[in-house]
Amino acid sequence: MPVVGVIGGGQLARMMIPAAVGLGIELRVLAEAPDSSARLAATAVGDYRDEATVLAFARECDVITFDHEHVPQAVLRALVAAGAAVHPGPDALLYAQDKLMMRERLSQLGVPQPDWARVESADDLTGFLADHGGRAVVKTPRGGYDGKGVRVIDDAAQVADWLADGPLLAEELVAFERELAQLIARRPSGAAQLWPLVETVQRGGVCAEVIAPAPQTTDAQQRAAAEIATSIAHGLGVTGVLAVELFAASDGRVLVNELAMRPHNSGHVTIDGSVTSQFEQHLRAVLDWPLGDTTPLAPWGVMINVFGSLPDEKIAAALGHQPTAKVHAYGKGPRAGRKAGHVTVIGAELDDVAYRARAAASHFDD
Amino acid sequence: MPVVGVIGGGQLARMMIPAAVGLGIELRVLAEAPDSSARLAATAVGDYRDEATVLAFARECDVITFDHEHVPQAVLRALVAAGAAVHPGPDALLYAQDKLMMRERLSQLGVPQPDWARVESADDLTGFLADHGGRAVVKTPRGGYDGKGVRVIDDAAQVADWLADGPLLAEELVAFERELAQLIARRPSGAAQLWPLVETVQRGGVCAEVIAPAPQTTDAQQRAAAEIATSIAHGLGVTGVLAVELFAASDGRVLVNELAMRPHNSGHVTIDGSVTSQFEQHLRAVLDWPLGDTTPLAPWGVMINVFGSLPDEKIAAALGHQPTAKVHAYGKGPRAGRKAGHVTVIGAELDDVAYRARAAASHFDD
Repeated sequence: MPVVGVIGGGQLARMMIPAAVGLGIELRVLAEAPDSSARLAATAVGDYRDEATVLAFARECDVITFDHEHVPQAVLRALVAAGAAVHPGPDALLYAQDKLMMRERLSQLGVPQPDWARVESADDLTGFLADHGGRAVVKTPRGGYDGKGVRVIDDAAQVADWLADGPLLAEELVAFERELAQLIARRPSGAAQLWPLVETVQRGGVCAEVIAPAPQTTDAQQRAAAEIATSIAHGLGVTGVLAVELFAASDGRVLVNELAMRPHNSGHVTIDGSVTSQFEQHLRAVLDWPLGDTTPLAPWGVMINVFGSLPDEKIAAALGHQPTAKVHAYGKGPRAGRKAGHVTVIGAELDDVAYRARAAASHFDD
Repeated sequence: MPVVGVIGGGQLARMMIPAAVGLGIELRVLAEAPDSSARLAATAVGDYRDEATVLAFARECDVITFDHEHVPQAVLRALVAAGAAVHPGPDALLYAQDKLMMRERLSQLGVPQPDWARVESADDLTGFLADHGGRAVVKTPRGGYDGKGVRVIDDAAQVADWLADGPLLAEELVAFERELAQLIARRPSGAAQLWPLVETVQRGGVCAEVIAPAPQTTDAQQRAAAEIATSIAHGLGVTGVLAVELFAASDGRVLVNELAMRPHNSGHVTIDGSVTSQFEQHLRAVLDWPLGDTTPLAPWGVMINVFGSLPDEKIAAALGHQPTAKVHAYGKGPRAGRKAGHVTVIGAELDDVAYRARAAASHFDD
């Protein structure tokens, strides 16, 4: 029985547990705290930035993978030096950790992206703004997620605080019709498997809803998204699941917004809606096992995120009113605004599926 | 977050783990041994026949349920006396523990069964044989499973050893076209939900394969099976999942063979093939939460049991050759003849689905 070690005890590690139980894989989690979302599989609690902690954890595992992308490069490289099988590896993860490096590398690969520039000063940024209609998206290269570390600006002074700390990434503010996500899994030995392209609906910079497959996309957009994800997976040597967040621009372009090298919120719909879920596929990929079929189990799937908390009585109410809804609770204590669970419904008609998913999720509204 | 305690750490408890993780239920298992199939969720190791052990375990749980039906009545009643919510309760479980009591009670309920008699002596049995064409099935009232405790005889002397220990159950040897199983779940507050009727294929008295829904059954047979399971669930006050094993007799009758008051091998196909699996439904039922939709995710599903062991390299080979197959390994050490896992495939055409399931399972043949 293979042992997969996951660094990080969040909901992504938690959702690997059912897939591991199914396939007879032993999952071990290095969690941040005893009450982590993935506590059922936690065999160690410690700091993922501490080399000795991570090395000790890895010694008991056949493969190391991740709940998040925050493990420092020095720790990742120490793991590899110690002989651990690390998937995705440090050379790939670098591009999920540093957005400037990601933009540079994707440019080299010829992958379509928004116009971008590395800016080191207010003057650099003022120049970029002048070239792009007076507005831009500015990102800190590291540490951002769910809208954090991202500002839309029209004056370089609006990121003066960030510029003091080092270079920033400036990006064209893309006029887009919708946001898409293309999920792919790749094995160390090279085989890769795509899921159908999905639409992600963001509110306040955070994913609120996913529709699978993405409605109203053209064959050309679907092909473009598949080619982009495939190029990135192979070009960056990603192992495991890769999520590519995309803009479907108003001018018809499909452009890379962000990368995540792990199971991703945009893929939660695959748990209940795909022959092989992203969590099962991730485990199969990091073990270099054959990848599974990714055919949808129904024509449409809609996934709605739940924020804050999922009290038992609200779960029971949601299940009672929507018997086809799959409610997923992440076992977290209540905290306003934090992703606490999600609801998925699949079925034959998008209107009906979306109605049922939103109706079930509405039980968790405050 | 509700806490469900499961007595017994076998594969049925193991397969409750993914459902519990999904719904945010805390599952605790009282296992027989540290290396039990459900060890990931084991919070105690001890003897389920020991009242103090079971009572101590139950004190930390909101609801108690079971991986098997072997907990003694005295222990069950001590649990109830101590205020525990026990599902199914001792009054219902009695009929899954004692086949003579089951036959008596189902006769009272008017449920169709094979002819049967309580036999206490060789003379009783000789009389039963004379009335039934010289052959009969004889069962020990307690402790039988998977063909154990069952003999087909044509002479009372063939069970002389058993008769010395007490009364036996003699049953008509039913000429049947096929064996069926009807799964149902019932909440303590009374609501019940059926899954579609399935066919079970036995080899050597052990379930080898399940086809869902049961092919070549008439509407009348489906209605009869549904009525039987519904009558038994309500009549016996079963809470949680009830599996009713049935004969589709050659003369058209649908007759009860055996009962199981827990998730059952005939329902494993629901994990990958139903909107709500038997394991999720069981947890919802014992918590008295609303029951889920049981619509199949595809027209056909085939589940094949794997015996002995599922070595990693064979799992990888099966997944590689059949990308649509869902392989389930129970995390048990190898032992010839023991259920070690199962394979499920779902899809549109029965021939194709059965081919793929059998092809995947064939990788585990010795």
